[in-house]
Amino acid sequence: MPKISSRGATMPPSPIRKLVPYAEAAKERGVKVIHLNIGQPDIKTPKIALDAIKNARIDVLAYSRTEGSEEYRKKIAAYYGKHGMAISSSNIIVTTGGSEALSFTMGAILDPEDEVMIPEPFYANYNGFATANNVNVIPIVSSIDTNFALPPITAFEKRITSKTKAILICNPGNPTGYLYTKEEIQQLAELAKKYDLFLVADEVYREFSYDGKMHHSVLRETGIEQHAIVIDSVSKRYSMCGARIGCVVTRNEAVLQAVLKFAQARLSPPTMAQIASEAALETPQSYFDEVIEEYVSRRDLLLSELEKIDGVKIARPSGAFYCLAELPIQDADHFAQWLLEHFEVNGETVMVAPAAGFYATPGLGKQQIRIAYVLEKESLKRAVNILKAGLLQYPG
Amino acid sequence: MPKISSRGATMPPSPIRKLVPYAEAAKERGVKVIHLNIGQPDIKTPKIALDAIKNARIDVLAYSRTEGSEEYRKKIAAYYGKHGMAISSSNIIVTTGGSEALSFTMGAILDPEDEVMIPEPFYANYNGFATANNVNVIPIVSSIDTNFALPPITAFEKRITSKTKAILICNPGNPTGYLYTKEEIQQLAELAKKYDLFLVADEVYREFSYDGKMHHSVLRETGIEQHAIVIDSVSKRYSMCGARIGCVVTRNEAVLQAVLKFAQARLSPPTMAQIASEAALETPQSYFDEVIEEYVSRRDLLLSELEKIDGVKIARPSGAFYCLAELPIQDADHFAQWLLEHFEVNGETVMVAPAAGFYATPGLGKQQIRIAYVLEKESLKRAVNILKAGLLQYPG
Repeated sequence: MPKISSRGATMPPSPIRKLVPYAEAAKERGVKVIHLNIGQPDIKTPKIALDAIKNARIDVLAYSRTEGSEEYRKKIAAYYGKHGMAISSSNIIVTTGGSEALSFTMGAILDPEDEVMIPEPFYANYNGFATANNVNVIPIVSSIDTNFALPPITAFEKRITSKTKAILICNPGNPTGYLYTKEEIQQLAELAKKYDLFLVADEVYREFSYDGKMHHSVLRETGIEQHAIVIDSVSKRYSMCGARIGCVVTRNEAVLQAVLKFAQARLSPPTMAQIASEAALETPQSYFDEVIEEYVSRRDLLLSELEKIDGVKIARPSGAFYCLAELPIQDADHFAQWLLEHFEVNGETVMVAPAAGFYATPGLGKQQIRIAYVLEKESLKRAVNILKAGLLQYPG
Repeated sequence: MPKISSRGATMPPSPIRKLVPYAEAAKERGVKVIHLNIGQPDIKTPKIALDAIKNARIDVLAYSRTEGSEEYRKKIAAYYGKHGMAISSSNIIVTTGGSEALSFTMGAILDPEDEVMIPEPFYANYNGFATANNVNVIPIVSSIDTNFALPPITAFEKRITSKTKAILICNPGNPTGYLYTKEEIQQLAELAKKYDLFLVADEVYREFSYDGKMHHSVLRETGIEQHAIVIDSVSKRYSMCGARIGCVVTRNEAVLQAVLKFAQARLSPPTMAQIASEAALETPQSYFDEVIEEYVSRRDLLLSELEKIDGVKIARPSGAFYCLAELPIQDADHFAQWLLEHFEVNGETVMVAPAAGFYATPGLGKQQIRIAYVLEKESLKRAVNILKAGLLQYPG
C-alpha cells in the first residue's frame, strides 16, 4: 500500500477533534452540550449581505477574477481608508477566507525549513498551515500573568537565525483576546526593520476592540511598508464564517505578485460569497455598535462568573471573543473529556477547548482552556456554573 | 526589504496571463475579442441549484462541517453509485473546488522533493500546485499524432525513482480532450500496483465523454482500492465554476485522515455553494443530454473548420471541451500576442491559449494552441475564420 507523506502524518489535528466523539456520545445520552469551544458567532449575518445573494441575477455561476472583482477590492480599499489605512485596490488580493490568505502568504514568503516567529499561545491552525507549507514555527512564549501581552523583544531576538523570515501576530488575539498596544506594534515594526523580516498581522477581529482601546494595524506604521502584510476576513466581522472570503493586504509588490500566482492556480474565490461580502461592506455602524455592546457585556459576565471560582486565573481580554483561563487542574484535555463523559448539571454539560493545542512548546498550556463567548448570556452563565460545579467534583 | 520565497518567485504564472494586457488593449481600441482561451462554459447553471441558494433560510451564514455536510456527502456517494462506483460518504471529503482537492491530495501524499509523474501536456495549474507544495513534476510526453493517448508504460517505468510517489492523470483531459480507454486505465493500475504508487485521477469532466465512448474511473478498478484517489468538482459538470466546490474521493483511510487534517486547518468549504451543489445533484439527465449534444456539435464544427486550414494538425478530442491544435508557425505565444495586437477581421479578433504552458518539458508545445469550445457555434465559426485569416497574414 502506498504511504502518505510525513507532513500528512505529522500535521496536528484540530485541538478539539479528540473531544468531538465524546460530545456526540453525550448528546446521544440526552445531555445537552453547551459549546464554549468554537468561534462560530451566534450573531446574525447583516441582512444586506444575505439579501444580495437572494437578489443576484445569475444565469451562469462563473469564476470571478482571481484577485477578486475590481469593484469589491475598491470597496475594501475604502473600508481600510475609513480605518486610517491608506490602501489601494491593487494592494488587495481576495482569498477564500483568512485561512487561504495566510496559507498563500506563507507560501509567498517562506521556503521549506524557513522559520516564522509567533507569540504563543496562538491560533492552532497556524500550525496546520506551517506544516502544510513545510515551514517551522518558532513560538515566543507570552504569559497569562500579563494578559498575554507581547513578550519582550529580546525574547524574539534570541531566537532569530538565518532561517527566520517573518513574525506572525494575531491582533486582537485568538485565543488570548489580547489587543496589542500602539507601542507593542511599534516595537515589532522596529524588530522587522532591524532584521529585515516580514511582519504578518492577522487582524480579522479588528472591529472587536473593547474598553475604548484603539486597534493599531501594522498597515499604519510608517517605515515598514515593505514588511507589513495583513490577513483579513469577513468571517467574524459580519458573522459570515461560511462565506469563506478573506484577503491579503500589502504594499509589497513582490509579495502581491507571488500571492497572485498562488491564487491563479486555484482560479478564483467563491463568486456568490463575494457578492455577499461586497454588500456586507454597507453594513451600518449601528450593527457593530450593537454587536460590540453585546460581546462586551458577555465578556464582563463571563469574567465576573469565572472570578467566583476558586483557583481560576483569567487573562482579561480587550478584544475578539475569546478568554483563556487557567484552572486548578493538571490536564485540561482530560478535564474537558471528563465533563463530556461523566458530568452534567440538570441534563447539561459544557465543551471547552483545551489550550495545549494553542501552544507549540510541549507541556505549556496544559492547565488552560479557551472559552469563546459567542453564545447568549443566559447560556454563558449556566455554562460557567457547570464548569464551577465540575471543578468541585472532578477527581483528576 | 525582506525577500519573497523562491517558490513564490519560481511559481509559473498562468499561461495566458502575459496576453491579458494585450486583450485589454484590443478591447480599448474597440476590437471585439472572441475568447477561445478560457474553460469557463457559457452553459446555464441548472436552475435548481441557483434556486436552492435563493430559497435557503439562513440567519447566520455559519461554517459547514470541515469534510462537508453528511447529507451532501451521502448524495455525492449516491451519484458515484449511479456511475458504477461503490463509494460511501466516509470516502468523500468536500473541498473548495477541485483545486483544493488536488492541493490537499498533493500535501497528503507527497513530501518536498517527491515526484509525481504526469502525462504531458497537462492542466497548467498542476505545475502551480506542485510548486506550492515543493514537489517535482515528472512529465511523460504524449503526442498529438495519437490524439494524446497514454504514453507507453515503459516511458513511465524509465522515469521511476525512489522519490516517485504518484501518477496524476486528467480524464478526460484538459487541455487534450483525450478520454483514456479501459485498457489504458488498467495499464496505469498495474503500474501503480507494481511500484506501489498512488494513482490520482482528475475526473472533473467525467460526464463529457463523447462518441458513445465510456468513461472509466480509477475508482472502478479492482486491486487499486488503496492507490486510487479521485479529484472531482461541480465546476464544469453543472457550469458552476464560481461555486468552488469539489471533493477528494478515496477508499484509502490514511489518505482521508491526512486530507481531513489539511481541511481542518481551513475550517470549511463555502456554505452557500454547498447548498447549491447539493441541489445540483438533482439535475435531470435531460440537462446533460442537451449539454453533451451541444458540446459535440460545437466540437464537430470546430474540427471541420480547423481541418479547412492548411498546415493545421488537430488532436481529435473525445471528451471535455478542449482541442489542441498544431499551427504552421514557430511560436504560438508570439502568434497569440500578434492576433491581439495587430490583427482583426471586421472589428473582431481571437484570444487563444498558447500550449507551451501546458508542457513541463522546455521547448515542447511551442507550435500548439488550446481552444476551448465553450461558446456558441456562430462565434466559434467566426473565431476559426479569424484564426485562418490570421495565419495567412502572420509575418512570424
